[in-house]
Amino acid sequence: MTVTRQSFQFADRIPSTPSIGSTTVTSPDHVHLSFGFAAPHLFPIEQLNEAATEAITSSGRQALQYSGAGGQGKIRQWIQSRSAVHGMHVKEDELLVTYGSTQGIDLAINVLVNPGDHVWVEAPSFFSALQSLRIAGAKLTSFPIDNDGVKVELIEQALLEAERSKAPLPKLLYIMPTFHNPGGVTLSVERRIRLAELAQRYNFFIIEDDAYMELNFTGEQLPTLYSLCPERVIYLNTFSKIIAPGLRLGWALAQKEVIQKMKLLMLGGSVGVFTQEILAQLLERIDFEDHLGQLKAYYKNNRDIMVDATRQHFGSDVTFHLPQGGFFIWLAFNPGVNTTELLPLAASKGVSFVGGRSFYIGQDGLHYARVCFSYCNGEQITRGIRALAEAYKEWKSGTVQIG
Amino acid sequence: MTVTRQSFQFADRIPSTPSIGSTTVTSPDHVHLSFGFAAPHLFPIEQLNEAATEAITSSGRQALQYSGAGGQGKIRQWIQSRSAVHGMHVKEDELLVTYGSTQGIDLAINVLVNPGDHVWVEAPSFFSALQSLRIAGAKLTSFPIDNDGVKVELIEQALLEAERSKAPLPKLLYIMPTFHNPGGVTLSVERRIRLAELAQRYNFFIIEDDAYMELNFTGEQLPTLYSLCPERVIYLNTFSKIIAPGLRLGWALAQKEVIQKMKLLMLGGSVGVFTQEILAQLLERIDFEDHLGQLKAYYKNNRDIMVDATRQHFGSDVTFHLPQGGFFIWLAFNPGVNTTELLPLAASKGVSFVGGRSFYIGQDGLHYARVCFSYCNGEQITRGIRALAEAYKEWKSGTVQIG
Ligand SMILES: Cc1ncc(COP(=O)(O)O)c(C=O)c1O
Ligand SMILES: Cc1ncc(COP(=O)(O)O)c(C=O)c1O
Repeated sequence: MTVTRQSFQFADRIPSTPSIGSTTVTSPDHVHLSFGFAAPHLFPIEQLNEAATEAITSSGRQALQYSGAGGQGKIRQWIQSRSAVHGMHVKEDELLVTYGSTQGIDLAINVLVNPGDHVWVEAPSFFSALQSLRIAGAKLTSFPIDNDGVKVELIEQALLEAERSKAPLPKLLYIMPTFHNPGGVTLSVERRIRLAELAQRYNFFIIEDDAYMELNFTGEQLPTLYSLCPERVIYLNTFSKIIAPGLRLGWALAQKEVIQKMKLLMLGGSVGVFTQEILAQLLERIDFEDHLGQLKAYYKNNRDIMVDATRQHFGSDVTFHLPQGGFFIWLAFNPGVNTTELLPLAASKGVSFVGGRSFYIGQDGLHYARVCFSYCNGEQITRGIRALAEAYKEWKSGTVQIG
Repeated sequence: MTVTRQSFQFADRIPSTPSIGSTTVTSPDHVHLSFGFAAPHLFPIEQLNEAATEAITSSGRQALQYSGAGGQGKIRQWIQSRSAVHGMHVKEDELLVTYGSTQGIDLAINVLVNPGDHVWVEAPSFFSALQSLRIAGAKLTSFPIDNDGVKVELIEQALLEAERSKAPLPKLLYIMPTFHNPGGVTLSVERRIRLAELAQRYNFFIIEDDAYMELNFTGEQLPTLYSLCPERVIYLNTFSKIIAPGLRLGWALAQKEVIQKMKLLMLGGSVGVFTQEILAQLLERIDFEDHLGQLKAYYKNNRDIMVDATRQHFGSDVTFHLPQGGFFIWLAFNPGVNTTELLPLAASKGVSFVGGRSFYIGQDGLHYARVCFSYCNGEQITRGIRALAEAYKEWKSGTVQIG
């Protein structure tokens, strides 16, 4: 049989760029300020080991089987009581365990959005959510953030304008109200209340992606959008930032009707029971408040180190919002700076970051850079920021010389 | 704020029926011939326990982190060498570890199919694949199977006819050539060769879902479609049937270009490293051939018990193909029998099965029933088939009396 080399038209939904986060750099000295990862030394390995043994010995045979349910019982209970701590009182059927909140985002989007539907996002926004929205065929519009989160007054204006001109209203707004990735900002109470009202009035859904909410350095707690408007919010959270991402476990809270539809889209039944059983055992073995306290102390300290290094090495060349939680600092350079060009230069100096471009739906964000203070230790952060500043200065002088 | 109860138009892609496999029956005596599950007592629990401990102690911190790669190294190697045993020689970049083959099916479909594209399937076919195809917006056409698998001559006729009349050609054929779920049949060598030629000639892709291939009771081995036509086949397999489904690990083999695109659609990066690390350790601890031998001996014996019980209790009321591997017997009743009506009656007698209807794209399959011999033990199988026969006889006499 002769092999005819025919071409084939693949589906349109395939994005052209890979997701961020992987790297080919292997030098042990390289500083990965690009990685939005948890600090591995804070994973509760010992208890996890006990948990795995217990899970396998006591319920291994069930845990290794398929399951049709919306999550393992103990984990569901843990999520319910933890949600209650944050003012969200959910019933059994308003909760779904997901394969990380990445799956939560994807299910929520696919439940709500037909190809061609309008979806509004923040600028900047989380690249995986943007990817998922593009694959679902959403028409995207973005709204800028400031130090108080997304500018809700602009959203309101746009809604009024759309209503007036009979333009399509959004079906969905995807938002990270707390310790935004990459912005580091938190949506103010006033804006939360207003946004919840708008969702009711204009009948759109909000995906509230609250992945970093627990990593709160101040203790000041704002009401979730879900608690303000449970009818029109799908609330997403994850064990990735508070326990470990490798488990791939997250959850969604929403109205019963929405959760049911999300379940229907979960091909292959629910999330694997094996890791759920291990996590359930783990949660019984750790003092969660204590564990969380350690995470917050470590990440806060890292943030301070990064802030100091940035002030020292960049001076007035960058500005940023001081994040009160989460993983990220979002560096704003002067307009005209091109961080995409800065990437290879920084890599040659031994540091990587994520260029602002990745967080925007269009060609914007070029003068921003996301640096992460969670994964690297203090020494690496200081070294990384110094190297980044050097790269920046070289880039600047190069540009000036040429220009 | 008054809650306005507005209605909301959810996305069209949501299916109306849940996937099969879950149940609400909790009586301990109930026989679940509906479950297409592995036998839990054959899970290698002890080695798994060791494997988990080793995985967590030796590489826990990496295993709990995110990963951007296409699978853990040792698992990739295992898959490569196992594929070679079956005549499939794949390179590093022709392989992707997936979240069960359910994700493999979904990724493969989404890489190939735009909404409105034509996809051809077998009748009957695997319900999760049908679900995934519907969500992707595929236009489905089905082709019947007989004891030698799908009738490739009908596919060929349909291709010729479509070409002649300038009707749309399929972009994709989804097929289970070996120990078909639910049919139990295996595609003959001649048909395999012909199908591979047709895929080349008419430039469509084949998804070869080979989930049950290793559970081969005879030792007779046929060439995979992938080995016949690697340019146009996406080959899928899974650890669910040979190790345990709760791990949620499977794999895809395809051309580099296709694998790259599947990776791009994998939101949230690759499959969780944690379970991969555990599986990798497990595969080092078991003698796979030996383990597989135990599975095959047990399942073959169960099949024999089910066949005997069926012959004894049903006599000439049902016919079936004797499966030479896999999990299922596909019972054909006389046309006119309605197995959907039989379901509640059987449940009341303490046995469940899957009605044929679930495996068809239209309203067909009503006089079929899928019974599974892998999950239940011999005693349960005998009792279950007897109860099913009783239910059937009652249904028949009821129908006769009424009619
Ligand atoms: C805002 C946000 N949402 C969701 C996720 C996904 O987390 P996971 O899928 O691990 O739960 C991340 C992780 O980077 C994130 O930053
Ligand atoms: C034909 C076939 N393909 C794929 C699967 C999915 O297996 P998994 O997602 O557990 O790998 C099954 C399981 O029932 C099956 O029968």
